Amino acid sequence: MGAEDQVRELVASVPPASREAEEEARRRHSRLTKPPGSLGVVEELGARLSAMTGTCPPPVPRRAAVIVAAGDHGVLARGVSPWPKEVTALMVRAFCEGRAAVNAIAGAVGAEVFVLDVGVAADLPPHPRLKKARVRPGTGDLSMEPAMSREEAALALLAGARLAREVLEGLGEAGTGGERRDLLVTGDMGIGNTTPAACLVAAFTGLPAALVTGRGTGIDDATFEKKVKVVESAVRLHAPDPRDPLGVLASVGGLEHAALAGVALAGAANRTPVILDGVNSVAAALAAAALCPHCVDYLIAGHLSTEPGAAAGLKQLGLRPLLDLSMRLGEGTGGLLAIPIVRASAAVLAEMATFEEAGIGVPD
Amino acid sequence: MGAEDQVRELVASVPPASREAEEEARRRHSRLTKPPGSLGVVEELGARLSAMTGTCPPPVPRRAAVIVAAGDHGVLARGVSPWPKEVTALMVRAFCEGRAAVNAIAGAVGAEVFVLDVGVAADLPPHPRLKKARVRPGTGDLSMEPAMSREEAALALLAGARLAREVLEGLGEAGTGGERRDLLVTGDMGIGNTTPAACLVAAFTGLPAALVTGRGTGIDDATFEKKVKVVESAVRLHAPDPRDPLGVLASVGGLEHAALAGVALAGAANRTPVILDGVNSVAAALAAAALCPHCVDYLIAGHLSTEPGAAAGLKQLGLRPLLDLSMRLGEGTGGLLAIPIVRASAAVLAEMATFEEAGIGVPD
Repeated sequence: MGAEDQVRELVASVPPASREAEEEARRRHSRLTKPPGSLGVVEELGARLSAMTGTCPPPVPRRAAVIVAAGDHGVLARGVSPWPKEVTALMVRAFCEGRAAVNAIAGAVGAEVFVLDVGVAADLPPHPRLKKARVRPGTGDLSMEPAMSREEAALALLAGARLAREVLEGLGEAGTGGERRDLLVTGDMGIGNTTPAACLVAAFTGLPAALVTGRGTGIDDATFEKKVKVVESAVRLHAPDPRDPLGVLASVGGLEHAALAGVALAGAANRTPVILDGVNSVAAALAAAALCPHCVDYLIAGHLSTEPGAAAGLKQLGLRPLLDLSMRLGEGTGGLLAIPIVRASAAVLAEMATFEEAGIGVPD
Repeated sequence: MGAEDQVRELVASVPPASREAEEEARRRHSRLTKPPGSLGVVEELGARLSAMTGTCPPPVPRRAAVIVAAGDHGVLARGVSPWPKEVTALMVRAFCEGRAAVNAIAGAVGAEVFVLDVGVAADLPPHPRLKKARVRPGTGDLSMEPAMSREEAALALLAGARLAREVLEGLGEAGTGGERRDLLVTGDMGIGNTTPAACLVAAFTGLPAALVTGRGTGIDDATFEKKVKVVESAVRLHAPDPRDPLGVLASVGGLEHAALAGVALAGAANRTPVILDGVNSVAAALAAAALCPHCVDYLIAGHLSTEPGAAAGLKQLGLRPLLDLSMRLGEGTGGLLAIPIVRASAAVLAEMATFEEAGIGVPD
């Protein structure tokens, strides 16, 4: 079976979320020992977790993992970032050695870190938490040519889906025992990748480049103007059609975006919640949602990145971010910080007493 | 020594936060492997934790505890809530049995729950996680008389401070081994307590009752109008002077508010971060800050409650809430959810590599 057919098969395997379990969660919430609605977003999220997992109360996710997909970008040659592409590989090494922001934050919230090389332009040494599945050593320069072929976009998506499935099924990381995971977070690494992210958001939302392009690592005004023009002209050049999501990924995306779309679809296919990080994860989720609209039922917006494309993409997806901490690092850092809120939302439904159990009469 | 003198002694024992450690944290943040500022609030909070603890990197808080102070309220007789006062004691029982929202959320974020009976109008059975330190069985009706005497307010404050110190020093809860704690969260329980909370916020901010009074458990329009009038007339009756914080607590506060002011001051005196929950915790923090302005350096706004007094109080304190999840339950639930962000903020400073260590050159 060809790669595009396998993507279609993956999309077809995503089950509808359970409205019955969701309704049961809402009814349960009205009977728990608290004023109805007083836990706000935590109640809403609990009902969504019931819909995702098809059970009320939903299982409390104890074993979370972030998948950081990494790739390089031909468009970096256009001067959209001051950082050289070698930094992508150096940061992947830092992820493996456990010394990056994603590792510190994962440790603080009790999550494991997996890294997927889906397109880094360097030969990376093997490491237990690094999955090597390079489709090509970085994308082409999307300002002049398609970033990759449709086949490559499909292969990158499938690589993300495969690692997600392996992680969910208990792929062992050194010293972790290889238990099944029950919660995924998407993360990204790729110097220059907020340029394709902005292109993807522009393509899927129809918004102009100036409204969805951000300053990434913190570029100056001149670089920012250049970046907006690159996004604008790339979207004009390729005229990506949002009804053809693989075509959009191929023409203006990145290998890590395609891979993260696969992570989102594989999580949904497994009825597992997937927490999105910032603009690169949101751009990937737009592609996943274009392929499979109801996969959004399994997605949770972890935080609101300061990159403008993140807000635009989340609005299109109909997802409200759990956190707003002025973060814009990527790597999965903002998504990881939302894990405890997800755990708490399930725990409230699973562990609280009802008014009846507590012997409390509810006033009229 | 009298109770008021002991409060003065506690206030005098709060050390200034360390600006040196804070500056060192900011410098360190600029050298860590991420674009400067890209972790937003997490970087700011890390610097604040350094200031609190006087060290850079700050220790990563691993053992957090929430102290839920409970009391009853004479003003309930004015019909400010549809819930009977017996529910306060029933909820304390649920906290002890581990079946309330605070327990579920504490479990999800890895925190212990302690309950302080500082004024419940019922005899509570002993329990390992319940500290009995009742000053009086509920307050007087603040719409007609002072809620308590100055002496009682001071005693309630000291009871909160004492339990906070014991918890920090390793008070054993059944099965927990009694290790030292390094992070506190404030929580409250008391049917009717958003009325004194609104009075306290009005007294310390000078704002009119209508702007700082909320719907608490979710009261209807008629009850809400009555509640605003009660707050308005109580503030007019007692004319509380914000320069006399014990006098304000005594005239229009609650026993749990006084106790939580003590928790905040004891945390600060111990150089330990204290995470505030919703409007009752914020009202208590306003009293603590009026007694000891620089204790605010040790306070963290866990979340923005939907109760309007919370936003008004946090603004006065100069604290920006970490979370905004439309919560209004109290018990410490919103504060608990901020614990992982605090842990992550310390872990980033403690565990990340610098650019130099990662072999990455920083562009100009």
